[in-house]
Amino acid sequence: MKKNLTLKQIAKELEVSVSTVSKALKNSEEISEATRQKIQAFAKLYNYKPNNIALSLKNRKTKTIAVIIPEVVHHFFAMVISGIEHVANLKGYNVIICISNESYEREVINMEMLASGSIDGFIISLAKESQEKKDYHHIKEVINQGMPVVMFDRVTREVYTDKVIIDDVLATQEAIQFFLSKERKKIAMISTPDYISVGRLRTEGYMRTLEQNDIPVNEDLILRIEDETKLTEQLEHLFDTQQFDALMAVNEIYAVAALKVALKRGIKVPEGLNIIGFTDGIISQHSTPSISTVKQNAFKMGEISAKLLINKLEEQSEHEHYITEVIGTELLHRETTSL
Amino acid sequence: MKKNLTLKQIAKELEVSVSTVSKALKNSEEISEATRQKIQAFAKLYNYKPNNIALSLKNRKTKTIAVIIPEVVHHFFAMVISGIEHVANLKGYNVIICISNESYEREVINMEMLASGSIDGFIISLAKESQEKKDYHHIKEVINQGMPVVMFDRVTREVYTDKVIIDDVLATQEAIQFFLSKERKKIAMISTPDYISVGRLRTEGYMRTLEQNDIPVNEDLILRIEDETKLTEQLEHLFDTQQFDALMAVNEIYAVAALKVALKRGIKVPEGLNIIGFTDGIISQHSTPSISTVKQNAFKMGEISAKLLINKLEEQSEHEHYITEVIGTELLHRETTSL
Repeated sequence: MKKNLTLKQIAKELEVSVSTVSKALKNSEEISEATRQKIQAFAKLYNYKPNNIALSLKNRKTKTIAVIIPEVVHHFFAMVISGIEHVANLKGYNVIICISNESYEREVINMEMLASGSIDGFIISLAKESQEKKDYHHIKEVINQGMPVVMFDRVTREVYTDKVIIDDVLATQEAIQFFLSKERKKIAMISTPDYISVGRLRTEGYMRTLEQNDIPVNEDLILRIEDETKLTEQLEHLFDTQQFDALMAVNEIYAVAALKVALKRGIKVPEGLNIIGFTDGIISQHSTPSISTVKQNAFKMGEISAKLLINKLEEQSEHEHYITEVIGTELLHRETTSL
Repeated sequence: MKKNLTLKQIAKELEVSVSTVSKALKNSEEISEATRQKIQAFAKLYNYKPNNIALSLKNRKTKTIAVIIPEVVHHFFAMVISGIEHVANLKGYNVIICISNESYEREVINMEMLASGSIDGFIISLAKESQEKKDYHHIKEVINQGMPVVMFDRVTREVYTDKVIIDDVLATQEAIQFFLSKERKKIAMISTPDYISVGRLRTEGYMRTLEQNDIPVNEDLILRIEDETKLTEQLEHLFDTQQFDALMAVNEIYAVAALKVALKRGIKVPEGLNIIGFTDGIISQHSTPSISTVKQNAFKMGEISAKLLINKLEEQSEHEHYITEVIGTELLHRETTSL
């Protein structure tokens, strides 16, 4: 399939920024007449056809931003959305949300549908399946056409754009180090499959901390949950077959499910088992005992994602530069850790 | 402010359906030439100006439906969205979600933004503030312009359209009747302010059941939570000042918060206190003890809302008729009720 010439290719060829090309094709007076003529002539020569996305650039400033998230059931994504809405509304932007439901196909469909409609830019966290396939052409295309994209939480190195993440390795290391400081050395890890970036990084943080402390990694103590409907079943198998005095979970649903299995078996928490989860959500706060957790500051992650996107939309600069903002986390002790 | 002539007014005047008017103005061959000419002449005579929404009717079939919900933190709305997505995707429709954040203004802004964009119809659950203000002109306008709207859960009699609800009074009566059958007659009720339709109806179900059983209603046993950040504080005051052996909560967050306050005080659940919540979500399932609940079938509510909307979008009928679908609920006993 022959690819159409993109804004980015024109920009590269003529050694100007994508934004200059876009403005020149719109005949913007911000660009000098000489540059405009050169770019327009080049585009004509190579039969440049603006696609839907590029067309929508002509009437930018719809003041609407689109958010694509994998799912809405986890409190983390609900909180990120709240943060995005907070900043967007303050700055006079509307927010439209689409859910990929962890599907690559739905992520692509949603992105194409929105990009050809009336939105200014995207904030996205990758679907499981997209990370598994490692196919990000839909995101790259949108960026190539000059539409800004900010990625958060589930990001990839393969797309060059603004990103907002936490240091998943470091945050996990801090939690595991806490267990070790309390002489709890048999630590179970409830994670996701490795193709999900945040799960892989947290598992890496777990392994690295053990290795740094000369504790051999026992793969049988690591659960990688592929199918959440079998979560309790898999946890029960872990409790049946392994011995451990501490447990780390990569989200609060895994943490509360592990807590429930432990309590059902008469294991005292925190005396017999320490538990630390991720995400400071409603479940961690209200469960009994309440769950100690790595606070990810999801609301702040949303706020910063929205700020980065809106800056990109409103900035006058001709220079392209992308940043990765790392949000600080904190280990919040509640009732499932012994201090 | 002089109102423009609407499709509905033309329809009424000429004694045809709104859909006939809409099609005639689009010069659809589905409508007889005589009728088309009559309607077009009338519209011209009265200087009918299609607004943005009416314009978008011209190129219907964007195959996108918009959902407006009050918030995403409650599991109930997340599950309704899953149900909507399920049916919509099967039928080849995309779903766009906007959050009103319980604000009347944001509900209006989102609705106007989406209606003038490229969507085919709406599914909406009202914001707190809209119910408090009782101002639904934005929804009525969209319907008047011929765009289908389905309301779910938080609905109002003042808008004449398709609705999907549960029987909130009946569902609560069943739960309260269960408490009474176990000789638990001092029953606390944790509800919302009365201007929120579902809260009011559930409080009504509570009161009606007590009255039917000749038990006087004690207003001090009813908490109406205005500000969720003060939930625990208000619950603690209730436990300090009142005696009760059963508690009903209108959602699972109120239920789990009440459970936590009770356990903190050494009250045994279910022996000393029975608890029933609403919404069969992750919190109810995973808390310890797990919470007995009125199962609202939120996923099904979403599925039916999407079906009703898509039927409306695809039906050929000239007749307007609206239905209210009542989803069955069930009382699900877990560990917070004594059987």
